[in-house]
This record gives sequence, C-alpha cells and structure tokens, in this order.
Amino acid sequence: MKRPIIIDTDPGIDDVAAITAALFSDKLDVKLITTVGGNVGIDNTTKNALDLLTFLEKDIPVAKGCGEPLINKIKTASQVHGDSGVGNYQFEKEPNTSLLLKGNAIVELRKAIMSAEEPVTLVPIGPLTNIALLFKTFPETKENIKEIVLMGGAAEGGNATPVAEFNIYADPHAAKIVFDTSINIVMCGLDVTRLTGVAADDVEKVKTQGKIGEMIAHMIQFYERAYSKYSIAIHDLCTILYLTRPELFKTKRANVNVVTEGEASGCTVTHFTEEGNVHVCIDADVEAFRKAFTSIFAGI
Amino acid sequence: MKRPIIIDTDPGIDDVAAITAALFSDKLDVKLITTVGGNVGIDNTTKNALDLLTFLEKDIPVAKGCGEPLINKIKTASQVHGDSGVGNYQFEKEPNTSLLLKGNAIVELRKAIMSAEEPVTLVPIGPLTNIALLFKTFPETKENIKEIVLMGGAAEGGNATPVAEFNIYADPHAAKIVFDTSINIVMCGLDVTRLTGVAADDVEKVKTQGKIGEMIAHMIQFYERAYSKYSIAIHDLCTILYLTRPELFKTKRANVNVVTEGEASGCTVTHFTEEGNVHVCIDADVEAFRKAFTSIFAGI
Amino acid sequence: MKRPIIIDTDPGIDDVAAITAALFSDKLDVKLITTVGGNVGIDNTTKNALDLLTFLEKDIPVAKGCGEPLINKIKTASQVHGDSGVGNYQFEKEPNTSLLLKGNAIVELRKAIMSAEEPVTLVPIGPLTNIALLFKTFPETKENIKEIVLMGGAAEGGNATPVAEFNIYADPHAAKIVFDTSINIVMCGLDVTRLTGVAADDVEKVKTQGKIGEMIAHMIQFYERAYSKYSIAIHDLCTILYLTRPELFKTKRANVNVVTEGEASGCTVTHFTEEGNVHVCIDADVEAFRKAFTSIFAGI
Amino acid sequence: MKRPIIIDTDPGIDDVAAITAALFSDKLDVKLITTVGGNVGIDNTTKNALDLLTFLEKDIPVAKGCGEPLINKIKTASQVHGDSGVGNYQFEKEPNTSLLLKGNAIVELRKAIMSAEEPVTLVPIGPLTNIALLFKTFPETKENIKEIVLMGGAAEGGNATPVAEFNIYADPHAAKIVFDTSINIVMCGLDVTRLTGVAADDVEKVKTQGKIGEMIAHMIQFYERAYSKYSIAIHDLCTILYLTRPELFKTKRANVNVVTEGEASGCTVTHFTEEGNVHVCIDADVEAFRKAFTSIFAGI
Ligand SMILES: [Ca+2]
Ligand SMILES: [Ca+2]
Ligand SMILES: [Ca+2]
Ligand SMILES: [Ca+2]
Repeated sequence: MKRPIIIDTDPGIDDVAAITAALFSDKLDVKLITTVGGNVGIDNTTKNALDLLTFLEKDIPVAKGCGEPLINKIKTASQVHGDSGVGNYQFEKEPNTSLLLKGNAIVELRKAIMSAEEPVTLVPIGPLTNIALLFKTFPETKENIKEIVLMGGAAEGGNATPVAEFNIYADPHAAKIVFDTSINIVMCGLDVTRLTGVAADDVEKVKTQGKIGEMIAHMIQFYERAYSKYSIAIHDLCTILYLTRPELFKTKRANVNVVTEGEASGCTVTHFTEEGNVHVCIDADVEAFRKAFTSIFAGI
Repeated sequence: MKRPIIIDTDPGIDDVAAITAALFSDKLDVKLITTVGGNVGIDNTTKNALDLLTFLEKDIPVAKGCGEPLINKIKTASQVHGDSGVGNYQFEKEPNTSLLLKGNAIVELRKAIMSAEEPVTLVPIGPLTNIALLFKTFPETKENIKEIVLMGGAAEGGNATPVAEFNIYADPHAAKIVFDTSINIVMCGLDVTRLTGVAADDVEKVKTQGKIGEMIAHMIQFYERAYSKYSIAIHDLCTILYLTRPELFKTKRANVNVVTEGEASGCTVTHFTEEGNVHVCIDADVEAFRKAFTSIFAGI
Repeated sequence: MKRPIIIDTDPGIDDVAAITAALFSDKLDVKLITTVGGNVGIDNTTKNALDLLTFLEKDIPVAKGCGEPLINKIKTASQVHGDSGVGNYQFEKEPNTSLLLKGNAIVELRKAIMSAEEPVTLVPIGPLTNIALLFKTFPETKENIKEIVLMGGAAEGGNATPVAEFNIYADPHAAKIVFDTSINIVMCGLDVTRLTGVAADDVEKVKTQGKIGEMIAHMIQFYERAYSKYSIAIHDLCTILYLTRPELFKTKRANVNVVTEGEASGCTVTHFTEEGNVHVCIDADVEAFRKAFTSIFAGI
Repeated sequence: MKRPIIIDTDPGIDDVAAITAALFSDKLDVKLITTVGGNVGIDNTTKNALDLLTFLEKDIPVAKGCGEPLINKIKTASQVHGDSGVGNYQFEKEPNTSLLLKGNAIVELRKAIMSAEEPVTLVPIGPLTNIALLFKTFPETKENIKEIVLMGGAAEGGNATPVAEFNIYADPHAAKIVFDTSINIVMCGLDVTRLTGVAADDVEKVKTQGKIGEMIAHMIQFYERAYSKYSIAIHDLCTILYLTRPELFKTKRANVNVVTEGEASGCTVTHFTEEGNVHVCIDADVEAFRKAFTSIFAGI
C-alpha cells in the first residue's frame, strides 16, 4: 500500500523536482499539496504548483497557504530560483485552477489529516509557517501525523547566512514551534543535501529523458549558477528519496533548538542525543543518490 | 444601535468584572466570548466563562481557545486569581455547557467576524494567543474588525516583571503579531489600569448591590491581597469602560514594539507618534471611574 | 572633613553644573576628573573639562578616558548639548592643559583610588565605560571604593529610547559590569532627575549670579529646548545634591539588570528588594531641590 | 631573526603542548606569557604556566590575568583537562615564582608591546578576556601588534555547544571586541584543529622522546578520553605550527561576528570575503602535521 503524504511547498526549482518524484513514485500517495511563501511570493508558489500539476496531468488538490512568516518580514530567494520561482522555464498550458481548494492551507491540512484513514506523513519543503499555524490552531492534528520528513536546517553550516539554512531562516519562529513538538521529524538539512549534490553531467542526462526530464533539467540548469558544476544540491528532492529509498541515508537522533533572534537567527542548534525527536540525516550513499536522480524521471 | 463586540478572555477576577459590565451595558452587544489560557489554565478559564454566563443567565456562545502561548511555556497568575481563577468564589449551579461551541476559538472568531453585518470590535483581556493565530490563519478577518480595545502592556512599568505587563509577558510573540498589524488598537495598559484603581470601600459598596454585586465584590476581595486597599486595579474593566464611557479616558497615539526575548521579554516599547496605530490610554478621570465602578453593577 | 570623590564625566551641559557644584561644595573634595565619550566625543568632553576648570580657576587633575563604548558603536547626544557639548557657550581663555595627566583615565583612576587614605566615592555622570574597564582591569580598586553615586538609568521610562536612559543606552555592557558588582550604588536615574526639573524662571535667577551663574545659565538656556520650561532636568546635578544634601532624596534598594541587546537595549530592569546593592532614588523634595539650584552658584 | 610573540594562555593540556613547542622553536622568541581563567581557574592556570617553565628551565616572565570573563560567569572545562588543568600529571619541582611579574597581564602586555622593537605577534590560546581589556584600556597597543594568531571559534560547528567553540563561548563579549578590531587575525578554529587530530599511536611515540615528550604525552593521554583515538585534537598547538610551518595550512579571509547572547552564544558567524580581517584556517596538510607533532618534542 502507498504511504499517504502531504507536501507543503514553495516551488522553487528543487520543489518541482521533489513534487514530480513524489507524484510518480509507486510508494507514495500525495493527498494534498499546500503552498507557502518562501523562494518566491505566495501567488507565484501557488501558480507554480498548479502549473506543474497541469503539466504533469495530475489531479492533486492544492491549497494556498501563508504568504508571510509568523513574525519576521518575508525574504525570498529569487536570486536563486528566478523571479517566477521556476527559473526561466515557461509552462505552456494555462494552469488548471479547478485543483485549487476553497479553504486555505491550514484548514485543508486539518481536513486532510483528520479524515485520513491512517496517520499521514507531512513533507514540508519550504518555510514552516503553515505547519506551525496548523499545530497551534488545530493541535488535534498532531495525533494523526505519522512523521514529518522535512527539508530545512543544518547540524553545521548554512546557506541563507553562514549559520542558517534558508527555510528555517525565512521563518525561525515557525520552525521553533515545529521542532519543539514531540512529533518524529526527519531533518534533511544541508548536511545531507549538500553531500548529495549531483553533477552538471547528471543534469544533461536527465534533460534527454522525455518532456518531464527536459522540464526538470531546464530548471536546474538555471539554478546551477548558484552551485559548483560538480555538486548541484537538489535540496528538496532528498525528502522524497528518503521516503522511497531510506536505505540510502544515515540518521542520528537529536534535539534541535532554533535561534529566533540576532546574528544567528535561523540557526538549528543540534544537540545529538538518543532521546531526541529529530532524526538528522548526517550521511548518504552519494553514488546511489546520483544514480537515483538520473533514473527517477526517466520512465515517466 | 448597540456596538457588536467579541471578548477574548482568561477569567480571572477582573475578567469577570469586565464581562459582567459588558453583558449588562446598553451600548454593547456581546456576540461571542472566546477563552484563552492565562491567569489560569484553559480548562479553568473556559469553565469560569461558562459558570459566569450561567450565573448571569446570559446565553452568549463560548468558544474554547489556546491553552499554550505560541512559543513560550505557559506561566499562570494563580497567586493573584486563586487556583480556580475566581478566587475562592463558588458558583452554585452547574455550568450550562450547551453554550460551548464545537469549533475552537480561532474558527469561531472567524465565523463571527466574517458573518457580522458591521465591523466588529475585538476586546482581548488575556494573552493575545488566539488573536494572533486568527490574524495569521485567517488574515481576511482583519478587514472586518473595527477596532481592538485590549487590556495589556504599559508605556512605563510592569507587573509580571519590572518592565512587562502580564498579558503581554505571557505570550510576547502573539502580542508582537497583533501590535504589528495596522489595525487601530486602544491599549488599556498599566498606565491607566493602575491609575483607576478603586478603594476597598468602593468594593464594600458593590458587595451590597444584589447577588451580582456580591459575586463581583467577593472575588475582588480575594484579589485585593495583591494590591493596596486604596487602589485595587480592576484592569480588564477599563476596556469596557473605555467602550461605554470613552470621555473618561485620554489617549495618545504610538507605535508599540514588543520585546520577545531576554531580560525585558514582554516589554511594550511605546514610541509616541501621531502616525501610530495604537491609542495608548495615558490618563483617566479617576473619580468618575470609581463612581462608574460603584454604580455599574447596582441596577442589574 | 571633606568627602573624597572622583567625577567621571562627559561634559555636557548638566555635567558642567554638577562639576561646578562639586568643586565649590565644602563637603566634597574632588580628587580627580576623568572624561569619557558620551554627550559628545572624547576630545570635546576632555577639552570641556579643561575649559571649565580653567574658567573656575581650579587645579584639579584630569585624565582622558575612553572614546568608544566597550562593544557598541558610539552614539552622542549633540542634538541636546550642541556640537561642542556646552551649547553655544564660548570659554574665553585657552584651557590649562597642564592639568591633563599623562596616564589614561583607567590608569589614573587606579592610582588615585589605591593611594587614597580613605575609601573614595565614585561619581560617574556619563556612560560607564571607564568604570567598567577599571573594575575588570584593576579589580583590586573595588576594595577601596566607598560608594558609587551615579547618574543613569531609570526604574521606569527612558530618554534615549522609551525604555532606556542615555548613559546606560550608550554603553549597556559597561553598565551591566558596574551594576553586577557588589559595590553600593546610588542610582540617580530619570525617576528622580525628571522629578527635580527646575523652571525657566529659576535659570533666569541663576543667570544674574555672577560670571559663574551666568555661564551655567547660558548653557542651560541652550539645553532648555529639549525640555518643558516648567521642568528642565539638570540630570547630573542630582548626584552632587545627593552627596551634599542626602536628606532631599528618598531611595529604595533594588537589584538592577541591564539589557544589552535588542529593542530594549539599555533598559535598567529594576527589581526592588531589601537585598539589592543599588539604592534607587525614587523621590525628592522638589521645592528644596529648586531652592538649592538657585542658591548653589550664588555665593561662589 | 626570531619572531617576537606573546602567548596568552589558560593551561590546559593543549596549551602545555603549544607553549613547549613555542619555547623550543628556533623561529619564535617568546617575550611574555600571560594567563587567563578558562580551562580551569586563574590560580591554576597561572601555577601551571610557572610549573611548566620551571620544568622546562625557561626564564620567561609570566603575568597573571583575568579570572573572570568580561560579563558572563566563568565556566571551566575541567572535565577535559582535570581539576588542576594538566590532567593527573604532577610536576615535581616547586614552581619558580620569581618569574611572576608584579603587574597584571593587561599592564604587562602593554609594557611588552609598547617597548618592543618590532611589532609583536599575539598568540591567544584561551578565552580572549585579557586581550579585549588590553585593546579597550590601552588602545595604543593595537598599533604595535603585527598579527594575532589565535586558537578559537569555528566557521562550522562547536565543542562547548553544537555551535560554539570553548574559548569563544567562555567569553563571547571579549571575543567580539577582538574580532571587531581591524587587526589581522589568523583563526585556528575547530575547522582545522579537529582536522589535524593526531592518533593515539602518535602520542605513544612522543612518550618515548625524553622527559619532555613523556610529560606532554602523559597529559595528552589523560585528555584523550574526550576524543576518538584516531583523532586527538591538540587545538592550541595549531597556532604554533601555523607560525613555524605556515605552508601546512590553507586560510581564507572572512569577517567574523560573534554571537554574545542566547542559544547560539559564542558562535563565530564567519562571512567569507576578500575584505575580511580574519584569516580562517580552513584546511591543513594532516600528514605533515602529524609528522611535525611526533618530531617537535624529540630533540629537545
Ligand atoms: Ca522548497
Ligand atoms: Ca484577563
Ligand atoms: Ca553627563
Ligand atoms: Ca587553551
């Protein structure tokens, strides 16, 4: 049986890779996609989600979420993802807006989680604003969540600042709320997403794999500018590969305290301990990951 | 026509005085009462709200809200309000639990605000957790709010700490979210609630004014212990008197920045400026206030 | 016998009033004047100290201290004190630079304190940079200090920000170091310096009292612009009046925690307790203070 | 000609290795050793410095410095270095206390620096309290410092906390003062000190190298408990090897902002930039380093 998941996302180029991989996985059942402001503004991330589903001809419901962090002002990453959020890629068809639900992301997350037959896995791959509001506004939902597998944070280092990863930096208060719950969290942070960077050659290979491969590669080639050509991190994709190929990853338990103010705002202070609720991905089989990357979009 | 208001409250002895005054005012129409953890835990504040309405024979819907601040751990003030929150007062009847709505405070606030024919006035007299979550989860509600008249903060001084008032100290992140909106806020803070303290003699007078006066005075006499007998602050009552007798108060516009961390957490840094969205109550007609206090519960 | 004191100062108009009052008091023996950056830069505050002593024909040694706070960047108050620090007053004679000691303020403070026959009273009326460095670099000096009588801080309110007084705001880390010692500190903060504001009429009276009165009044009339004409705070003067006329003041013991970062930086969080090392001036005989002000510069 | 250096130190086991290496280097001329509280209290670190010099029969002047950080309370690392600071090693002779100067570390640092014929290199291998006080109390000394080569901080990671290295964590305010100067700083942080960890076998080899090797190895074997036997970091030794064998290290320029409060206190936020005043050691020739370690104490 497929594992039911909900993706909370700010597409974003690596979000597109992750969502696509999830939608075509035979192990995952994407119940809902919720959007959040992050890489670009909420109107763009929502449009990108709808555009992608229309392109992929997948009828997954989408709910629009928060455009602003809980307390901080929004800071986007359009220098990496382009003004639209998907580089200079142009989706040809008009987006199928009938996929857009009436309720906002928090209301629809609640509905989807509370009505699910089995506990749901949340896959947040943007700032954690929607998820934090969900847990505070509808705390009963926490009972029906199996696990959170998220992209965000780092045991060491950062990309938005020297000590903070972008998704956490963008809304550190929301991150603090999520990490402070007792829910099981798998943290695919920079520790593993940088390690599993793919090569420019891998992207070329994907580009030849049909119109989906071409779309993914086209976007990544835009985003490559921010990386070395020997290691292009497709951050968000790690969450989906963790779900479908957990054997590729090594995790270690920790408690994670999020810094919400000052020079280190967004830093995920990671105290490794057997009692921690966070399973930090600290290592991965890089070769197997790259092989997965170059085959995942091939047959679809 | 009566002014439609919603009271968000953590009863709490002064909350009881405020709610009672509001319910019997011919100028106010209480549409909804929402509860929040604060003076005591959420289960007690909710029971106290229902007990009070049952005692007063008023059929106002109640919705239960958040028991925990957004990010901080809960700290109650049961040393002031007693373990139950209403001192050692015992309500005799069983609470009329049919008044309790199914939706939580945030959902019911949204319904009440969005369905109101005219913009509603919010009257938060506890920590601002529910209101902050409302604005972040359902930002559309901000459009149908006329004004927020709240008890909390201080331009100078504090009671939870030397520089922080209890309601703001209890959930400074929520307070920051609320003060950072552009909604008109009337801040009845310690500046005015301490100034308008009543005397022990005033309370004795109220005690003779029927069973409602007796109930109010009984509770206040418990709570007097925390004050000088010449000036017992009935903090939350100031909001209702501001709404019914605005001529008793003098306000000054300001922007208010809430400190969320460190030694001064909960401090409301008040920058007076004509452009501010906050109308800080800085002075009051104390004699008229005391006269109002000793007459408000008399005829009811 | 006269009480030996050392004044650490950033003249500054009210510093001039305080230093002059101290030099002509028959109760005080000014052993040393040390300068610090504050109201204006260190070169100006040092020149002003020398100019004043030359004008008053007093041979008191002066040592030049720190121009920069411990950690923060310097912020002056030249909008209040004028670019030179003494309004638009012009001292006519060249300053007697022979009064300037070779050692810096910290070295000379140490010498003066360690060589004093009886414990010395420190009177800091500027940012506490020099004093903090003294205590950390030469901790043995703390043993020969009788008391610190300082101008700075506030139990409630602020002037540099709504919650911070200028001297503390200017170097909060230094203030924290000083307040965290176990030395007896008398804090003449805004609580009492605002209360004891003099009237414009009082200043006119002083202006007729010889060349010294004329000098003091001339400066204060420049500085009046920042105040109401009914209450012009001569902040630093309070320390000298506290030393010469302690009966005019009421104090209350407290521990004072200084906020060093964020929105409330420079706030002196004042926890009143009988065990506190800080004696906060909370009240004063205002009429007697004004009378003192109008007579102190008369006979000299 | 030998390069004049001053070592500021909190011995500490790795301090002993570093000081010893410096004293026997034909490239370095150790002018002064100043002590500071850190690994253990100031009385122990000073005794350890004297004990070591007595043992090594080296007549280097020692000045005792600060026992307490600028603002924080002291936190030692005696769990790593033992209660005495040198593990369970016992120096046999009484320490030669005639080496101890009368002035404190700050005063003696000033003297040594100002009287030096050529600009001096400072080598701080403990918390930066003395150095920060030197720069604030005697800012003129900054002009005669060639370079600071320090052990402390990390571009990524920590040991006192997940994001803070011990020397910086112990006195973050002092570290901020030092890093905020414009002096050239070589930062031998955890990035390189962990990389250059030696093996237990290397330590065994040193143990056979005369009484000095035996002493060094004896101590390190105590301290090994805190490390893997394949990589025992002799942190402070990196500074001396940087000075004597700079070709073994690779550096990259950065500005370093030190976090002084909150969860990430002591974190050295490292912004790599060509304009930075800090030369962060980011890589080293590990084999050459280990070879140096096993030969440095051999001939002496
Ligand atoms: Ca993303
Ligand atoms: Ca209340
Ligand atoms: Ca002054
Ligand atoms: Ca050391």
